[in-house]
Amino acid sequence: MNEITTAASGKVQIQDVFWSEYIRLVREVMVPYQWEALNDRIEGAAPSHAIRNFKIAAGREEGGFYGMVFQDSDVGKWLEAVAYLLETQRDSALEDIADEVIELLIAAQRADGYLNTYFLLKEPGREWSNLAECHELYCAGHLIEAATAYYRATGKRKLLDAVSRYADYIASVFGTGPGKLHGYDGHQEIELALVKLFHATGEKKYLELGRYFLEQRGQQPHYFEEEWERRGRTLHFPELSMVHDHLYSQSHLPVREQATAEGHAVRLVYMCTAMADIALETKDAGLLAACRKLWDNIVNRRMYITGGIGSMEQGESFTADYDLPPDLAYAETCASVGLIFFARRMLALDHHRKYADVLERALYNTVISGMSLDGTRFFYVNPLEVYPEVLGKNKNYKHVKAERQGWFTCACCPPNVARLLASLGDYMYSAQGDTLYVELYIGGQLETVINGLPLRLEQHSSYGTDGNVRFVVDPEQEREFTIALRLPDWSNEAIVSINGQANTYSGGSADGYIHLTRSWASGDAIEVCFAMPVQRMKGHPHIRQTFSKVALQRGPFVYCLEEADNGKRLYQLRLAAGRAYTLAGEPGFPAGIQTLSVAGIRAQPEGEWPAEGLYSSGASWTGREVQLKFIPYFAWANRGAGEMSVWIEEEAGR
Amino acid sequence: MNEITTAASGKVQIQDVFWSEYIRLVREVMVPYQWEALNDRIEGAAPSHAIRNFKIAAGREEGGFYGMVFQDSDVGKWLEAVAYLLETQRDSALEDIADEVIELLIAAQRADGYLNTYFLLKEPGREWSNLAECHELYCAGHLIEAATAYYRATGKRKLLDAVSRYADYIASVFGTGPGKLHGYDGHQEIELALVKLFHATGEKKYLELGRYFLEQRGQQPHYFEEEWERRGRTLHFPELSMVHDHLYSQSHLPVREQATAEGHAVRLVYMCTAMADIALETKDAGLLAACRKLWDNIVNRRMYITGGIGSMEQGESFTADYDLPPDLAYAETCASVGLIFFARRMLALDHHRKYADVLERALYNTVISGMSLDGTRFFYVNPLEVYPEVLGKNKNYKHVKAERQGWFTCACCPPNVARLLASLGDYMYSAQGDTLYVELYIGGQLETVINGLPLRLEQHSSYGTDGNVRFVVDPEQEREFTIALRLPDWSNEAIVSINGQANTYSGGSADGYIHLTRSWASGDAIEVCFAMPVQRMKGHPHIRQTFSKVALQRGPFVYCLEEADNGKRLYQLRLAAGRAYTLAGEPGFPAGIQTLSVAGIRAQPEGEWPAEGLYSSGASWTGREVQLKFIPYFAWANRGAGEMSVWIEEEAGR
Repeated sequence: MNEITTAASGKVQIQDVFWSEYIRLVREVMVPYQWEALNDRIEGAAPSHAIRNFKIAAGREEGGFYGMVFQDSDVGKWLEAVAYLLETQRDSALEDIADEVIELLIAAQRADGYLNTYFLLKEPGREWSNLAECHELYCAGHLIEAATAYYRATGKRKLLDAVSRYADYIASVFGTGPGKLHGYDGHQEIELALVKLFHATGEKKYLELGRYFLEQRGQQPHYFEEEWERRGRTLHFPELSMVHDHLYSQSHLPVREQATAEGHAVRLVYMCTAMADIALETKDAGLLAACRKLWDNIVNRRMYITGGIGSMEQGESFTADYDLPPDLAYAETCASVGLIFFARRMLALDHHRKYADVLERALYNTVISGMSLDGTRFFYVNPLEVYPEVLGKNKNYKHVKAERQGWFTCACCPPNVARLLASLGDYMYSAQGDTLYVELYIGGQLETVINGLPLRLEQHSSYGTDGNVRFVVDPEQEREFTIALRLPDWSNEAIVSINGQANTYSGGSADGYIHLTRSWASGDAIEVCFAMPVQRMKGHPHIRQTFSKVALQRGPFVYCLEEADNGKRLYQLRLAAGRAYTLAGEPGFPAGIQTLSVAGIRAQPEGEWPAEGLYSSGASWTGREVQLKFIPYFAWANRGAGEMSVWIEEEAGR
Repeated sequence: MNEITTAASGKVQIQDVFWSEYIRLVREVMVPYQWEALNDRIEGAAPSHAIRNFKIAAGREEGGFYGMVFQDSDVGKWLEAVAYLLETQRDSALEDIADEVIELLIAAQRADGYLNTYFLLKEPGREWSNLAECHELYCAGHLIEAATAYYRATGKRKLLDAVSRYADYIASVFGTGPGKLHGYDGHQEIELALVKLFHATGEKKYLELGRYFLEQRGQQPHYFEEEWERRGRTLHFPELSMVHDHLYSQSHLPVREQATAEGHAVRLVYMCTAMADIALETKDAGLLAACRKLWDNIVNRRMYITGGIGSMEQGESFTADYDLPPDLAYAETCASVGLIFFARRMLALDHHRKYADVLERALYNTVISGMSLDGTRFFYVNPLEVYPEVLGKNKNYKHVKAERQGWFTCACCPPNVARLLASLGDYMYSAQGDTLYVELYIGGQLETVINGLPLRLEQHSSYGTDGNVRFVVDPEQEREFTIALRLPDWSNEAIVSINGQANTYSGGSADGYIHLTRSWASGDAIEVCFAMPVQRMKGHPHIRQTFSKVALQRGPFVYCLEEADNGKRLYQLRLAAGRAYTLAGEPGFPAGIQTLSVAGIRAQPEGEWPAEGLYSSGASWTGREVQLKFIPYFAWANRGAGEMSVWIEEEAGR
């Protein structure tokens, strides 16, 4: 059915010098921690109440609802991460806990299939009265995603059946037909979840329901205004503008007519993910065109070099083309997770390396910047420049932190990171006809089927360290097919040896991949060495905030300067022209991670600045040569709070 | 009594090539327009209702209060500006209107002296229950200022007597004694007004009341919290934090203990003005020390090069030392007016040119940037960099406008500019013993008395154009005294000729003035020529936002680039090293105002930027020589909406 498919799930086992540790953190630190949190057993943390809400709804405990209107989604995201973990490593104790949670969810479900503890407990009878603000369909989507993942991991249908009943109930409530609500979700999510439900069940009605929600969005008269009038103009979040700011929820226009990325960044990329899913399933050229337009607007006009999106805190939103302030950036961790979802779907829909390049950029930079190296603390917001002295004083930076926070200060991002990392194997390969595409260079084993041929592929990678990757190919029988290696956008050259026979590739083919077509036999070995120079990246000349500056990148990693290595006042530093870089490891950083040292200049006033006065006509700057040390952006703020900057001025003469 | 006094009021007549036009605009455009506005006769404008509120309170009309809680202050500020105009030029029609307004105010006054239409009409019985938010004492202060100015201008006592009764009533309500409210004003203003009332009446009790308010501020337990509890925790402005954010209202500490400029910038400088006034009157060394500390913090850490203050929109407030973002600046016009009030008082208290230098900087740049060249449109906020394309999209700039607005979009700043310009003569001279200090070089006639000697001084000035000033001295009889000419901070040299005998002065004396002591006879002429190079100003190395950039200044004017002259994307422009400037006039700009043209570089990518992608390692910039044209900052946004920037990068090699 699909022209391009992701490699069969459950068949990738990651064993990677860099990523295995992240997956271990998800398994051993994050998921157990969140389970304790969901059960209100973390001392000193604000209660989550999420499990208790379900227990009360199930009649097993007394009490009332507590938490945010979208509290249920925390349970869904946790369960989804658990499913991915179980898929790659059986764990009967964890599975028992998950089964118990599933029993609980089902016990809380209403006879008609409805399941949302906020409305069941707190506003019964007012279901579906405030789609704009109350996240009902969003929570449903997360339960559906959990159910499909759990079914895929364990083959157990209980939750899948339960969410199918819920989806059937939703389909009875919403639609364009008479007597139905013509509404759609305030926060996009259920559309992409319904596509997963379609895949899991084969029931096309779920795809249709997802398509309905997508197509209904932004139609006039505006549903969020109508329901607001109907319910007596009440607001759940009066301090926000969820009802009347239609850009915020991408409901200002029908989705096919949207050509620029507007509003809340997470919502936009979740919506785009579903658009791409549905375009693929329905072969809808108009929807594909809309996906391409929105993709292009994001990555060619509105994305940070770290793969972060969202230039302002207000509405956690996009702003305007080429408006990318490094210090005021929102660049929410979840938004980059969502951008990865979108990129993965575009790889399936419109295969080209450019989607994988952005996927990699977001993954290696903003997503893992979102968590500390020990997996216990998290950034919601990922700025590209921080001066701690003004935080708390200049309120334009009220969203910016110089240190990661504990889980519950930012409850939405950590579970999103956990479910992405736990399912990282889904993002590594694509298949089309007799071609296996390698999207990400992460060590491990793949078991898949190419054009009917069972194939095992072993990947050994030190990609992030030196650009070297080795594959051992193991088809069930010798046969001709193609292995296509992505030549990443940061490398203009790769030396590829097959069984010791080397070839050099400069630039990719039209799709950006190195296509290796031959009769592959068991034991064939591919060695790849990507040229991996330190790159001085410049921003588009229309980005005023980065003009005349550079950011260093090496391989997939964007680098930054930290106060810990370079002292205070990073803005006084300049990168010297044409000097060599020294690579080195850093104690406490993951093995293989390289820091970069290079000559630089610290500009400073010639002589003492006058004791009085902020402005002087007599001042001139002189430069003192210093050694600059850059670290990968994702690793910042693991050595205490301090200044950080991705962008740096270059010494005159370059 | 005072060691330093301002020249006797009412004795300066301004006749200046630059400033006379501003004063004409106040007289012929602003004051008549505001009178129509106060009476709700401006078509299309939101009603002011300010005069109607008084009529209703006086029982002359039916209806209820309408407007902001501080609506009365608009009448006070208007009347104060009228008084200054009458002082320099009799106008019986205008005086008749003012007399009628005064009759109305008195008719609205309660028998006990109380006068505030909001509380009289809307919340009778709740007077003084919400000092933190409701601006009652602030409005009283503006009525007192108007009364003292009108008394000085006309000798008429009616309003002076009325506000004295009001002040007596206030003194019966507030104080440290038993049964009195221990409160103080939320928005500082009455303190400085009470000093004026003391000067007008000679009644020391008013000085004492002002001192009480000043000293009570910031004492614990915190009055704003106490009154909030007492009134049942209600808020007048729930969206703001006037009650609990004590920094906002400078009530976080007793005023003597405040060492940094915090919170709402207008409130801070109004408070400092009163502190300096009272320090002068009471010879209070502790208060003087506090004034100096706050002054130093403002001008050496927290002031824009344009004399603007307030780095953020949130709370219209100061942020942190050296945090001066040009694009996000608040730099409210009123705050620079207040800074001028403070500077004027410091000249009286602690005479040194540095205070007049800042006064001049604020006046020639931010204050007159606050109004359009035709006097009909106004800036509330005066940023140093504007990119109109992101306004309305990036909400960090929600306070920033690329075009001045009509009066009522920002009702507080225009009357403040009007009353300052109408009283500009008060800021030009100081006297101490037998020395007459010239603070500002503005053409006109002064009549004063120096050490008992009646003196007339004529000033002819083309100061802003070429740095030339001429004085004709006319003492009643020949006698030795000193005329001290301020050597402005932007000039390191002046040639001073007395009756044709030239002397060159490099650098000032200890106080920064050129002291000309001789026996002056009628007809003696002083010619001054200040060296007035174009200066490339640099910001303190701790200001990250201006580091490596320069701003041009010539004489008192800071310059900027506008899109109208230099095209879009001003951030791509660099100032070339060591080139000559061409000075020229500009059609539509005031006579004598010079624009600066100079060679510059427009940096641009070498070749076409790739069609896709925001970031590139291959890009390099090349420079195209262009002619840059700078205009004085105050004149920006008079030729349509466009980009503007004060700070510009310098070409490499300087």
